Amino acid sequence: MLPPLALLTDFGLSDPYVAQMKAVFLSQCPDARIVDISHDITPFHYEQAGFFLEASRKHFPQGTVFVAVVDPGVGSPRSIVLLEKAGQSFLAPDNGLLSLVLSAPGVATAYSCPVGAEASHTFHGRDVFAPLAIRRLLGEPPEHLGIPVPLSSLMQEDWARVEQDSQAQTLTARVLHIDRFGNTVLNLSATDWKTSLFQAAAVQLRSLQASVSLRCVRVYSELQATEIGVLEGSQGFLELAANQISAAEILGLSCGDTVTLALSERA
Amino acid sequence: MLPPLALLTDFGLSDPYVAQMKAVFLSQCPDARIVDISHDITPFHYEQAGFFLEASRKHFPQGTVFVAVVDPGVGSPRSIVLLEKAGQSFLAPDNGLLSLVLSAPGVATAYSCPVGAEASHTFHGRDVFAPLAIRRLLGEPPEHLGIPVPLSSLMQEDWARVEQDSQAQTLTARVLHIDRFGNTVLNLSATDWKTSLFQAAAVQLRSLQASVSLRCVRVYSELQATEIGVLEGSQGFLELAANQISAAEILGLSCGDTVTLALSERA
Amino acid sequence: MLPPLALLTDFGLSDPYVAQMKAVFLSQCPDARIVDISHDITPFHYEQAGFFLEASRKHFPQGTVFVAVVDPGVGSPRSIVLLEKAGQSFLAPDNGLLSLVLSAPGVATAYSCPVGAEASHTFHGRDVFAPLAIRRLLGEPPEHLGIPVPLSSLMQEDWARVEQDSQAQTLTARVLHIDRFGNTVLNLSATDWKTSLFQAAAVQLRSLQASVSLRCVRVYSELQATEIGVLEGSQGFLELAANQISAAEILGLSCGDTVTLALSERA
Repeated sequence: MLPPLALLTDFGLSDPYVAQMKAVFLSQCPDARIVDISHDITPFHYEQAGFFLEASRKHFPQGTVFVAVVDPGVGSPRSIVLLEKAGQSFLAPDNGLLSLVLSAPGVATAYSCPVGAEASHTFHGRDVFAPLAIRRLLGEPPEHLGIPVPLSSLMQEDWARVEQDSQAQTLTARVLHIDRFGNTVLNLSATDWKTSLFQAAAVQLRSLQASVSLRCVRVYSELQATEIGVLEGSQGFLELAANQISAAEILGLSCGDTVTLALSERA
Repeated sequence: MLPPLALLTDFGLSDPYVAQMKAVFLSQCPDARIVDISHDITPFHYEQAGFFLEASRKHFPQGTVFVAVVDPGVGSPRSIVLLEKAGQSFLAPDNGLLSLVLSAPGVATAYSCPVGAEASHTFHGRDVFAPLAIRRLLGEPPEHLGIPVPLSSLMQEDWARVEQDSQAQTLTARVLHIDRFGNTVLNLSATDWKTSLFQAAAVQLRSLQASVSLRCVRVYSELQATEIGVLEGSQGFLELAANQISAAEILGLSCGDTVTLALSERA
Repeated sequence: MLPPLALLTDFGLSDPYVAQMKAVFLSQCPDARIVDISHDITPFHYEQAGFFLEASRKHFPQGTVFVAVVDPGVGSPRSIVLLEKAGQSFLAPDNGLLSLVLSAPGVATAYSCPVGAEASHTFHGRDVFAPLAIRRLLGEPPEHLGIPVPLSSLMQEDWARVEQDSQAQTLTARVLHIDRFGNTVLNLSATDWKTSLFQAAAVQLRSLQASVSLRCVRVYSELQATEIGVLEGSQGFLELAANQISAAEILGLSCGDTVTLALSERA
């Protein structure tokens, strides 16, 4: 049985685009098992897509082929990356979407896949990404699909990096995603940042919209009605949260916003 | 071939949560066939979820494992129920979600499944429900998954019960769901209530918002432009409906509202 | 391995209706592979559904059974059509939904399928269409499912036809669909109409809302900020488009609107 094919796009489900990708998958590989990660990425927000991919990949089986198509640059001569990491394959435009996956620990190899001459009636997801994904899924080696390229040549975006000012004791982080319940995911991996935040005497959040002190908690229900907390969410990153209401709304934050966390040391 | 795994949540499809549950399913059981009942349950409205489950279960094959995760109480020490009924299995939080399934005719047995110590980074749907569902799907007997508990110990909600005042000739019912077309499903199973309503000389609907007389009809198209009808919908429950417009909007009703139906006997 | 079963409805995903159709599919055919084309067709807009079907069918494998349920006339004595074309099967209400598929080149045969006496609690998608689809998918010949009928007896809608006024050098076309990005698909198949438009000296768009000159382009990125272009989209039809903004919004167009294109000949 083949590993799954996992799809992530900003195409929505109200157009026939996702279905046409699936039609190509099933035409070229009748026993492909397709899983939708989401098609509701905010149009063109590849950083949100990068978070979805990084948060989800470890739950998928070995051999899964991920296809992530979020690309404001369709039509421009952007190349397609095939990234091999942790026994899984990732196909995406080389626009920074893979930054979080790249910056996570682990060995990776990358390949640049040719796109061919641009045809005006081409839908890259269906006509370029889908056939590449099937070839990889069916076991064709990555070097048949593209030319090996150094990881350093891939587009990497700032939003995957956290700026730390040791003197001022501040972290500058970014909002990767706001979920249905208003939980606000920051680009602070729990592995890297939880300890320093949770050991601080106090954590102050500063953004263009607000300045509030955060309480480091284990679960939502520890928070009082008016409190904003920071906790290790289920996605591997630190999240700003409130109890049964939207932290994002209270804080006036949107996807892509920058926030500063000021930590006070324990005496 | 394994029976289907049917999912019902309030997670939406704009977050990676549902996909991560599916990733766990496919990691632990590569040939699982997953069907989405819906992920658009109004957040925390487990009574709507209960209706979806009760209305849908009979269309699914024997052996189907249903996983329903709608739970305002995540983080609190709520247990997980495994209910076995009519040759199918139902996993849900013990919060009343299963009330309608429980109150339907038929023998059932229930098991309380341990949740384990709460870890702050736990996503119950993915980390607790999904592995339990796969174990049941693969044939592990219910008593391996939980401790047998009497049905009477399970949380049951009022909204599954209809209050009948024989003297005043009234029924007090509740809105379980309003569909895309504005049809308003009441918690009156067609089997139990259709005859008394349809044999009444007149049926008057009273709610906080309106008082109108209802016409008992067989199909939408029997209704005049301004009429509100009551009919046996396709979901096994009586529905308030209008012809090509939203009955819910005309009546000002929302999910969870209470309505009183006053029946006049034939002379 | 069976060919796919492709679903297209206006049921949305917030009700249990689509899931109940899938439950019937899997009950009657456990190894059916179901692909959702979309369930977000604007309620009752069968012309939009017709476009989705025509644009998508060629990407699906031979033998695919398409089930399209968009029907303002449920309850009225509308018959169900089974259309066989290009090695694929199409089940839909006989309400014009199949007009575009019918008017495309290729041999087709049609069958009228009996619906049976209307039961008030019938949900046609689940109770009539789904079992018919499975019978066809499992290889039952079309003449077992319905009575052969001439193509000319099928309901065909005007919106599939383009009015051409050779003297005035105008085409009267219709908006079939507006996608998530505001691209506005016209009922002008690229095969039939691209050459005449692209060879014209100028193309002027006139609608009730606007009169603008269009630039014929190959890709979105050729357009200036304020320009509206016409291009061969990825769906086989000509589209009105703008660069990174919504052409539909700029032009004030909605699905179903009529537009006139005035072509000026090259000197």
